[in-house]
This record gives sequence, C-alpha cells and structure tokens, in this order.
Amino acid sequence: MINDQKIRELICELCQNFYHAGWASGTGGSISVREGSSIYMTPSGVQKDRIKPEDIFELDLFGDIISDPCNGLKLSQCAPVFIKVYNIRNAGSVLHSHSKNAVLATILFAKNKVFSVSNMEMIKGIGGMRASDTLEIPIIANTDFEYDLADTLAEALQAYPKSPAVLVQNHGIYVWGNDWLQAKTQAECLDYLFDIEVRRQQIGL
Amino acid sequence: MINDQKIRELICELCQNFYHAGWASGTGGSISVREGSSIYMTPSGVQKDRIKPEDIFELDLFGDIISDPCNGLKLSQCAPVFIKVYNIRNAGSVLHSHSKNAVLATILFAKNKVFSVSNMEMIKGIGGMRASDTLEIPIIANTDFEYDLADTLAEALQAYPKSPAVLVQNHGIYVWGNDWLQAKTQAECLDYLFDIEVRRQQIGL
Amino acid sequence: MINDQKIRELICELCQNFYHAGWASGTGGSISVREGSSIYMTPSGVQKDRIKPEDIFELDLFGDIISDPCNGLKLSQCAPVFIKVYNIRNAGSVLHSHSKNAVLATILFAKNKVFSVSNMEMIKGIGGMRASDTLEIPIIANTDFEYDLADTLAEALQAYPKSPAVLVQNHGIYVWGNDWLQAKTQAECLDYLFDIEVRRQQIGL
Amino acid sequence: MINDQKIRELICELCQNFYHAGWASGTGGSISVREGSSIYMTPSGVQKDRIKPEDIFELDLFGDIISDPCNGLKLSQCAPVFIKVYNIRNAGSVLHSHSKNAVLATILFAKNKVFSVSNMEMIKGIGGMRASDTLEIPIIANTDFEYDLADTLAEALQAYPKSPAVLVQNHGIYVWGNDWLQAKTQAECLDYLFDIEVRRQQIGL
Repeated sequence: MINDQKIRELICELCQNFYHAGWASGTGGSISVREGSSIYMTPSGVQKDRIKPEDIFELDLFGDIISDPCNGLKLSQCAPVFIKVYNIRNAGSVLHSHSKNAVLATILFAKNKVFSVSNMEMIKGIGGMRASDTLEIPIIANTDFEYDLADTLAEALQAYPKSPAVLVQNHGIYVWGNDWLQAKTQAECLDYLFDIEVRRQQIGL
Repeated sequence: MINDQKIRELICELCQNFYHAGWASGTGGSISVREGSSIYMTPSGVQKDRIKPEDIFELDLFGDIISDPCNGLKLSQCAPVFIKVYNIRNAGSVLHSHSKNAVLATILFAKNKVFSVSNMEMIKGIGGMRASDTLEIPIIANTDFEYDLADTLAEALQAYPKSPAVLVQNHGIYVWGNDWLQAKTQAECLDYLFDIEVRRQQIGL
Repeated sequence: MINDQKIRELICELCQNFYHAGWASGTGGSISVREGSSIYMTPSGVQKDRIKPEDIFELDLFGDIISDPCNGLKLSQCAPVFIKVYNIRNAGSVLHSHSKNAVLATILFAKNKVFSVSNMEMIKGIGGMRASDTLEIPIIANTDFEYDLADTLAEALQAYPKSPAVLVQNHGIYVWGNDWLQAKTQAECLDYLFDIEVRRQQIGL
Repeated sequence: MINDQKIRELICELCQNFYHAGWASGTGGSISVREGSSIYMTPSGVQKDRIKPEDIFELDLFGDIISDPCNGLKLSQCAPVFIKVYNIRNAGSVLHSHSKNAVLATILFAKNKVFSVSNMEMIKGIGGMRASDTLEIPIIANTDFEYDLADTLAEALQAYPKSPAVLVQNHGIYVWGNDWLQAKTQAECLDYLFDIEVRRQQIGL
C-alpha cells in the first residue's frame, strides 16, 4: 500500500511538471504508470496543477477499474488508448500531452502523415537510436471522442513498430517507455525535436 | 467568514498563476469570483504578484461595494464590465487577462472582428463544444476608459450567445465560467488556441 | 537600520524577478532604489540570481559611496547613468535590464532612433498616458564603457521630457519611476509593448 | 570532505538551473566543476531535474575515476571531451548544454562553421571582450559517439585560441570558465546572443 501511495504522488508530481511545461493546460493531457498488473491513471477534466493523489484511478490491464476515487471524477477518455499501448508495446508508462510543439509539428507535417527528423543529437534520447538515424513518428487523424482513437493508433503501432510515440493531428501526442523515466525522457526529447523543426521552418532554413 | 478568507486566498493564488503566465504584468488583468450574492474582485493598479487577501473588494450583484480594503486601493475600472457579465451570463467567475497571445489574436483577426478556429482538440475545453466545432470569439474596439467597454461588450454577448469570452482589440480578453475552475480552464484553452493560430501564421501555414 | 536591511532584501527579491524574467542573465542588468538621500545599488558583475543583501552598495545623490560591501565587489559601471536619472528626473528607483525584447526593439527601430507605439492598452501603465496616446522611447548609441552613456542619456532625457525610459542600441533599457513599484510596473509594460511590436513584425502585420 | 559535499550540492543546483532553462531536457547536457586535482561530473543518462549529490562522479585530471556513485550509473560520454578542455584551457569548470538556441545557431551558421556576432552589449560578459569586439565560436561536426568529439574539439581550441566555447552541429555547446561562476556567466551570455541572432533572422533583420 505504501507503493500505491508513492505512485499516486509521483503521478501528481509529473502532472505539475507537465502543467508547467505547457503540456497540460486547460485540463488537457493525462499520465499513467503501470505497477505490476495495475495501471494508475489521471482522471478526466481535472486541472493538472491541482490534482491530488486520491484523484488517481487504478485499472487492470483490460482497462477495468480496480479502484475509483469515488469523488465524482470520471475515468479519462484516454483510457482505451492507453490500454492499447500497454498491451501492444508492453509499456511501463504511457503519457499524453497537448504540447503546442507537438500540435505545430502535426500541422507542419500534415501532408506526409508522419513527422520525420534526422541528424539531431536529441534523437539519441529515443531508445536504441543514434543521432544520425532517421526518427519517424506517425500522425493519425483526430476524432471527436478520444476513445475512437484506439483503433487507428493500434494500426499506427503496427505500421511503425519502432516508434515510441504517436502524434494526433491538431491534438497532441501519446508517448511511452519501459518505465516512467524512459517515458518522460522520450517525451522531452520528442518535444525538443518538434520545437526545433517548427522554429527551423519559421527561420526559413 | 472562513469562506470569505478562503476566496480571498484563492484569488491571490490565481493572481500568482496569472502573473507567471504573463497575463497580468504591469498591474494588468483582474480576477473575480462570485460566492452567493457577493462578488470578490481584485483592486485597480496593484501588482498581481504582490497582492494580499485584504486587498480584495467585495461587491454586490449591482456593483455596489460591500467591503472596501480601506487601504487606499481603488476599485478596478473593470468592475462595470464584470458586473455586466455576471448578470447577463449568470457567471460564477469572470477573469480579465492582458495575455500577449490574446492581443496578437486581435491583431491577426482585426478585420473580421471575430476570432475563429475549428478542428483543434483544445476547443473541447470550452463548455459544450466538440473538437470539430467552430469556435468564435467576438472582438470589440478598445476605449480609453475601461468602464466604457461595458455596453459594447453587452452587445457582443447578445450577438454571440454561446461565446465564453470577449476579446478587446489591442488590449486582452474577458473570460468567464460557471465557477472559477471552468473560467480558468476556458481561459487556458483560449490562450492556447490564440497562440497556435498566431504561430501557425508565423510559420506561414 | 531596519529600513536599510529591508531595502537590501527588496533589491535581492527584484533581482530574482529580473533574472527569471530573462532581464539579467550573464550578470547583466542592475537595480537601484532611493530612500531619502541614499541610493541603494547592485554591484558590478554579480549573478543576479545569487546576490545577497550585504552585496548592495549605498551611494549619496552625487554618486559617492556611503557604504561599500567590503567583500571585493565593485560599483556598477551603471552608477553615473543612474545618478543622472535620479537628479534630472527626481526618480525614486532606476532599473536597467538586458531584456531581449528591448534589444530586439532597438534593432527593429534602429533607423528612427526612437521606439514608437500607439493604441495599445498597456500604454496606460505608463504614468499619465492613455491607451490611445503615442508612446515614444528614445534609442541612444551603445558605448564600450557604460559610464560613457551618461551624457547622451542626459540629452535624450531633455529631448523626450515625458519618456519614462531610454533604450540603448543592442544593449537594453534604463527605466525609472517615482518609486520601485512604478519603476517595476513601467518596466513590465514597456517590455510587453516591445515584445508585441517585435512579434507583430515577425507575423508580418 | 565538507567541501566535497558542497561541490556535489552545487552541481545538483546547477542541474536544476540548466533543466529549467531548457538546456538539459531529456537527460541531455552535463556539468563539471574542478576542485584542485579532482573533477566532479554528472553521470550519463540521468534526468537533470532529479539528480542527487551521491550520483556525481569524481575523476582525476587524466579522466580516471576516483569516486564512483556505485549505484549502477555510468560515466558520461562527455568525459573525454571535458578532460581535453580542462587540460588544454586549464578550466575550473566545463558545462555542456543542449540549449535550443545553441542548436538553432549551429543551423543558422552551418555554412561558415563558425558563429559570429559583434556590437552587442552581452559580448562584454565573455572574459576580456568589449561590446564592439567580434566574438567567434567555432562549430564542429557532430558524431554518433560523444567521446569521438574530443579530437575535433581540440583542433577547434587551437584554431580559436580565445574562444570560451565550442558549438557542436545540431547538438549543443561546450562552455567553460576559470571557475563555475564564469562558466555559468559565459554560458548565459552566449545563449542570449544565439537567441538574438536567431530571432533577428526570424524578423528578417
């Protein structure tokens, strides 16, 4: 049970990080961490700078609720998307951000339906890659209901078996890792790369 | 009375949030929260990063002062504008920010006199809207005295009955909600959308 | 003496604000506050995020040192410039920032040798001005030694008798006020206006 | 031993500064400080916002490990690069940042293989320089393995004997100083200058 409390506190801390990075304004974004066969997940529609440990849902790997905050909060619409990633990629943590850099990257690369970058040092922050490799992150179409993203996201995972993330057009990004540390690192590296590519375009280079 | 103190502390906390978001530099911006038939409101010309609970005015729904800080501070020129919104929209909280993103949006959309955006996930943060809907925020002309905005703002509220906010040309934005949480969420979502549209224009997309 | 300590602590607090606003990186910028016939001033070449109350110099209105930190620190090269402003404008506080927005404004308005803006709400933050007024801030040439700025700054003060600030080409800005609160407010309003004009140009508006 | 603990705490504090400046996201960047014949250095692949004093390596001037955290952490790939700088320039501190401003500067000045700027006040923050001097920072090619940078960096140090830093194409910057204060000051001044030159280009000036 101590472990349970620690994970809830960690998620609240990551919510603060996300909020101050601009990845979770307006109640956007969500964070989940797996511990054994439990998945801890932020609720729907809560301001991430004000979330509390007792607001976190606990789910099993099928997405069924093990522990409900019982304070009127609802499960995030992201849940089915997160569950897909946990099962297909055997992830230890899945994050969802509304980063403006990610959204601008989807606008910049909308035609290709894939974000692509090579020869940048920060590519090394993505598991198994070298700075000189080409990193590709698929971009899927947005839907009015977030749970409707689950199937197209699953297709993108198959089409890009090495990708650590999926971008959603005009919406944001899902990123994951073997554990929350790798998920956070990869989320930061991707955000950095999106920003550089967007600003490179602004400068006209 | 405990409630009274809590609202004053909440407003100071929101002032800090606003200041650090760049929405209230140079003593700009103001924050108000309704509790029953009382409206709590920041004073005029005070630095929002240094405001104290005892600096807050308490007004009734006609805009008359119930409780004055009695420390030389004056009521904000925004008061008549806020009162209009409380009465016409039955709001629980009204915020006014000088966000640069809002001001740049008024410059970008000056000709149309309305900011317009569609197909962005963050539109979902506005009460009752879907990501695929078109969000419109009217832009009214600025005046030398803030209380002179009240009438044109009231007209904009009638012309755009669903709008959760009104932009003021080269000045900022008034945003509201059923409670302070919704007002803050909507303020953050709008600011995000303004920034994306401005940066999209910078990139030339 | 308590007052003396309070002013030193206030200056350290303002140094933190300046540093986090990006106005004082790389030991740049300086802050001074007048109390009666004493002027308290930050030393030369110290990192503003790490300055301590005992590092502050105390000068008289002629610029002579009343109290020296006696820890090897040197008086800022800004001192003769600050003293000019205190005497010519009877200021209560003079600030010097290396804000990038100010520097970009000097680049954008280099030909005219004056920054000019009108019809912006934040102009109201400058003492005695309306939003519809035209605000002009003179731009003087930079020099290799900061004390060499004193004479051209004095000329600019005469040429622009209402200006609350002087910009220095590719360098930064000197801003003042009747007290530190007005100096800080005016510094924030000007910085906001510089940023808007620079970004307006980036968008091509 | 008290000194040893203080340096470890200082490095953690600088890691926080770097992380919040955006210079060390995604586990990027590293920090080292020399004390006598010991060099204290951050480990490889650790999130800089979460590093602890006991995670720091202690090396001698040949780069051999004196004290290992013994918690599974590995020495940074930067180590051979840092050691080169310590020995060739007799530095007291060497920093490595992934600042986006530095990376955008390498993209902007890629053809010339040297970043060049003159007539900017912040040039004065670089030891021995005047605002009207021309500052040149060499840009070397990136490599897949960071230790492979050591030789080309040594060549750049010879070619630019006055340069306080070396840029690495699409990667970041190595900066140093006689002590950590000068290294931090110079890192901040350079970052400021990179940003101004990049934004000047964005505006088209």
